[in-house]
Amino acid sequence: KGFDVTKIEGLTAATFTPFASDGEVNLRVIRGYADFLLKQGVRSVFVNGTTGEGVSLTDEERKLVAEEWLKVAGKRMTVIIHVGSMSLKSTCDLAMHAEQNGAAAIGAMPPSYIKPPSLDSLVLYLQKVGEAAPNTPLFYYHIPVLTGVKFSMEDLLKAAVTDIPTLRGLKYTDEDMMEFTRCLACEKGSFPIMYGRDEQLLASLAMGGIAAVGSTYNYCGLLNNRLLKYFKEGDLKSALREQRRSDDAIMILRKYASIAGGVGAGKAILKARGFDVGPPRLPLLPLSVEDYGSLVTDLKSIGFFDWA
Amino acid sequence: KGFDVTKIEGLTAATFTPFASDGEVNLRVIRGYADFLLKQGVRSVFVNGTTGEGVSLTDEERKLVAEEWLKVAGKRMTVIIHVGSMSLKSTCDLAMHAEQNGAAAIGAMPPSYIKPPSLDSLVLYLQKVGEAAPNTPLFYYHIPVLTGVKFSMEDLLKAAVTDIPTLRGLKYTDEDMMEFTRCLACEKGSFPIMYGRDEQLLASLAMGGIAAVGSTYNYCGLLNNRLLKYFKEGDLKSALREQRRSDDAIMILRKYASIAGGVGAGKAILKARGFDVGPPRLPLLPLSVEDYGSLVTDLKSIGFFDWA
Amino acid sequence: KGFDVTKIEGLTAATFTPFASDGEVNLRVIRGYADFLLKQGVRSVFVNGTTGEGVSLTDEERKLVAEEWLKVAGKRMTVIIHVGSMSLKSTCDLAMHAEQNGAAAIGAMPPSYIKPPSLDSLVLYLQKVGEAAPNTPLFYYHIPVLTGVKFSMEDLLKAAVTDIPTLRGLKYTDEDMMEFTRCLACEKGSFPIMYGRDEQLLASLAMGGIAAVGSTYNYCGLLNNRLLKYFKEGDLKSALREQRRSDDAIMILRKYASIAGGVGAGKAILKARGFDVGPPRLPLLPLSVEDYGSLVTDLKSIGFFDWA
Amino acid sequence: KGFDVTKIEGLTAATFTPFASDGEVNLRVIRGYADFLLKQGVRSVFVNGTTGEGVSLTDEERKLVAEEWLKVAGKRMTVIIHVGSMSLKSTCDLAMHAEQNGAAAIGAMPPSYIKPPSLDSLVLYLQKVGEAAPNTPLFYYHIPVLTGVKFSMEDLLKAAVTDIPTLRGLKYTDEDMMEFTRCLACEKGSFPIMYGRDEQLLASLAMGGIAAVGSTYNYCGLLNNRLLKYFKEGDLKSALREQRRSDDAIMILRKYASIAGGVGAGKAILKARGFDVGPPRLPLLPLSVEDYGSLVTDLKSIGFFDWA
Repeated sequence: KGFDVTKIEGLTAATFTPFASDGEVNLRVIRGYADFLLKQGVRSVFVNGTTGEGVSLTDEERKLVAEEWLKVAGKRMTVIIHVGSMSLKSTCDLAMHAEQNGAAAIGAMPPSYIKPPSLDSLVLYLQKVGEAAPNTPLFYYHIPVLTGVKFSMEDLLKAAVTDIPTLRGLKYTDEDMMEFTRCLACEKGSFPIMYGRDEQLLASLAMGGIAAVGSTYNYCGLLNNRLLKYFKEGDLKSALREQRRSDDAIMILRKYASIAGGVGAGKAILKARGFDVGPPRLPLLPLSVEDYGSLVTDLKSIGFFDWA
Repeated sequence: KGFDVTKIEGLTAATFTPFASDGEVNLRVIRGYADFLLKQGVRSVFVNGTTGEGVSLTDEERKLVAEEWLKVAGKRMTVIIHVGSMSLKSTCDLAMHAEQNGAAAIGAMPPSYIKPPSLDSLVLYLQKVGEAAPNTPLFYYHIPVLTGVKFSMEDLLKAAVTDIPTLRGLKYTDEDMMEFTRCLACEKGSFPIMYGRDEQLLASLAMGGIAAVGSTYNYCGLLNNRLLKYFKEGDLKSALREQRRSDDAIMILRKYASIAGGVGAGKAILKARGFDVGPPRLPLLPLSVEDYGSLVTDLKSIGFFDWA
Repeated sequence: KGFDVTKIEGLTAATFTPFASDGEVNLRVIRGYADFLLKQGVRSVFVNGTTGEGVSLTDEERKLVAEEWLKVAGKRMTVIIHVGSMSLKSTCDLAMHAEQNGAAAIGAMPPSYIKPPSLDSLVLYLQKVGEAAPNTPLFYYHIPVLTGVKFSMEDLLKAAVTDIPTLRGLKYTDEDMMEFTRCLACEKGSFPIMYGRDEQLLASLAMGGIAAVGSTYNYCGLLNNRLLKYFKEGDLKSALREQRRSDDAIMILRKYASIAGGVGAGKAILKARGFDVGPPRLPLLPLSVEDYGSLVTDLKSIGFFDWA
Repeated sequence: KGFDVTKIEGLTAATFTPFASDGEVNLRVIRGYADFLLKQGVRSVFVNGTTGEGVSLTDEERKLVAEEWLKVAGKRMTVIIHVGSMSLKSTCDLAMHAEQNGAAAIGAMPPSYIKPPSLDSLVLYLQKVGEAAPNTPLFYYHIPVLTGVKFSMEDLLKAAVTDIPTLRGLKYTDEDMMEFTRCLACEKGSFPIMYGRDEQLLASLAMGGIAAVGSTYNYCGLLNNRLLKYFKEGDLKSALREQRRSDDAIMILRKYASIAGGVGAGKAILKARGFDVGPPRLPLLPLSVEDYGSLVTDLKSIGFFDWA
């Protein structure tokens, strides 16, 4: 595929799934969405994950969304398709589809309702996922606050060496910076670990991270790319200034997430920033017109439109 | 349909889904399974729920399992089909299918990965589920320890009166006996509440319960039916003796659940009790031959085969 | 001492500690408080526990409060002194003092900040507490929601047989009715288990309980004594009616607890019921005059003053 | 006092409290302990906190330990005395004592058993603590994983400006690097925030931190001082190498903490590193001779004695 996803660095946007006002997936918007990200210097996407309301889609819809992203991305973007679901069968089916359609990598969260009772069972589960897409790198999606599945990620990586041949890294969405840096160092650094808490991207860089994936990179791509650049240049003071701006935006995101869920609030910020992907799906709700108005006012008050 | 599910009482078995050794759904076993339950005096089933590994099945598989249960049950059993999943679309599709195939009722858990951010959003969600099966009573499946969704169930029932016309009750799987009895009393007792913690069935009866649903009624049906009878006769001492026997079995269930998950361990006990529904699906694991041997020894040690 | 606390049954009030408006312990009120309880048919008290803000008192204050209760109780009441604290030294000192002053029993919660890392360490800890009061029955105070200490209580009781000679039972404040009934049955029923969740007293009776300890028995003593009587007579319907009334009061307690903490709200209800023990201590707050007014209105709306 | 604690930077050791084999406080060891820290370049101590088993001591013992540290420190070390306990009275008494004996600052955790029901009640509580030591800077000790008290620390700092005149900063022991950096920036950076998760010290530096307090600085002082120096010089690569070594040690600490509690395991590492402060107090346990042997072997295997 030309691009080696196992050397991934920089920002990956966890994309929102566009819906029309009737609640149906709105594929036509995706091309413009890709352009919008590229203009921010964001060249990689993680599709159908938490931000993408992946589990709120049917498998058929997930495939359509995946195909569209793979089509519009072409060689301009790295496309990682999240295939995790509650059902191994569905997950394998989605994994196979992603491979057939040329995904650079797939991601998979563990089943979070009927949970793996042991690390061994998780390893077996991921092994099967890998077998369905044997030529595509697999990233395990670790987000214990949502899945309730919290095994040692170091132990998972060690087991993967022999038991999950396609596992190539993690999407690591947790605050434990010690485990994060240990995973980076694990097996002589052979696993890329994409950091997933935008709130503390800078902390992850200091701990050795070079890649990040998150929802705010949809609308704060320029800001966070500056943060990355400053860090590389050794200008930590400027990097911290950008991180704090990012956090100002995240505080507003959280405020409205309590009303509409994180995705509902995030879609509203994306709209305010200039790209409308429509409302979320139930059980999430769009912001009311009034709440959207306050959101924009709040964003202005922190200077969002000047630096985002 | 002849039977009024809103007056449901007694035991409902949360059925296991039979799998063949290749991991595929094994429909042929279901008729015998129904007979096995009826012999224990269990005349009602809750299909495709947690015990049924519902979310580990594809939607197509869920429909096949539902159809088979509805077919073999005939007029002998009350069949409640669980249609909850992570996706409203799937849930509505399953609800419609259940209604078309004559389910006595449907059950729905809330989406547990992308969670409803407010009670209002849960009400809207369930309203849509109800609209997909407008002639079928809907039971909300409350199991906060697994879903992480914990709104006041009294508030849900009150909202349902006007906003979710088909909602007729709850499958209440929690230890909070105060909320349980308040739900029973809510709206002058118009909502049946099926109690879902087999560990303390007797406590639920004292608090006003008359219906229960759980996985141990698959193999401890006789025992728990005696418990119900003793309670009705006012013989609380005998009822408590049966409850404690049931709890002895549940202690063993928990011991092996730490290895194979609750469903893996439960399937093993069912097999030991005389009916084999095969292994669970990943991420759950079957017990090893050795562990199964110890399980049987443990069951013997508590007299399980004498009183279950 | 004439009274055998190991055969304890019925209601024990977890007493509030009276404070004057200057925040100092108000010992003079205690005699009248004892009379107030006796009029409700409550003949046993648990002093300096959670409801008593025990850990908010200095050790010296705890001793004064204990002495006063032991003095005014005389032979009219059973007095259990809670001696648990964060420090084993203090706890042993308080235990010795309680024994010297004639407590019928002592209670001890585990240290909840620096927690016992294993059941073994908890057993050793309680052994030392017992050695400080070798002639006084010891009740372990299990309240995991507040202490975060949650070992198997069955295992603790089994260990106590050989390792904690003075341990005679539990104050069991949790919703797990299976563990509760197993503790009652443990070692042929030789350990009395006082149930501590007033919300579901009736459930505990069905599961074999005969003794209860809680804060609402300070002001709902008559009601809960009727509940006990009905249950003994086999009139479960009337018992449930009383339980539901009790729960109506507890819903109001919870509403105001979110403002003033559970003790602040409880003291306000006690005052409304006719006995004023003053405000709580920081970090708890008394209700404002306005909030107290609404509390009384709320209590009237459920008929509290007619049946409490 | 010459030293301005509100400009604190670098490492502060959260000291262990030395006990003799009979379990009594062993004050004589403290002078040598101070020298041991100074040799590692650690010039500041936080006494009687979690690591110091503060709440396991009686108030009288806490005062003796505080006095000894203040005496041996002289002008060589900054001494912060932790005065938090479950009781406001005790806390104020300890605060007054610390001020009278010349502490550079005091620290106070919130009461964790009877918790503040609102931020307002916490503010009032800390206000009273401050009034007991009106001339001594107060650091709030935020450690939600142990206290269960988790209010917004930004909101606390903002409230402190007007309502808690002596509050000058935080001991911040949590992984939330966004809240940490926001607290640093709060009120134009007027509050020093000491970071308390040794596992990710480097992350805190990148997020703007300059001061840290923790238990591993008792035995990994040289290592962490090198980390600080490298960071200041912009040599992030070397800083990360030291962080990962520190984390290797912390993994071993955690392994033995599951046996003896964190303090029991920490005291054993300190002993292995060359300074023996004796066993912990119940409910904590010392390592057995065998476990201590394995601990030393484990430490050797990571090169601990070469770089700590």
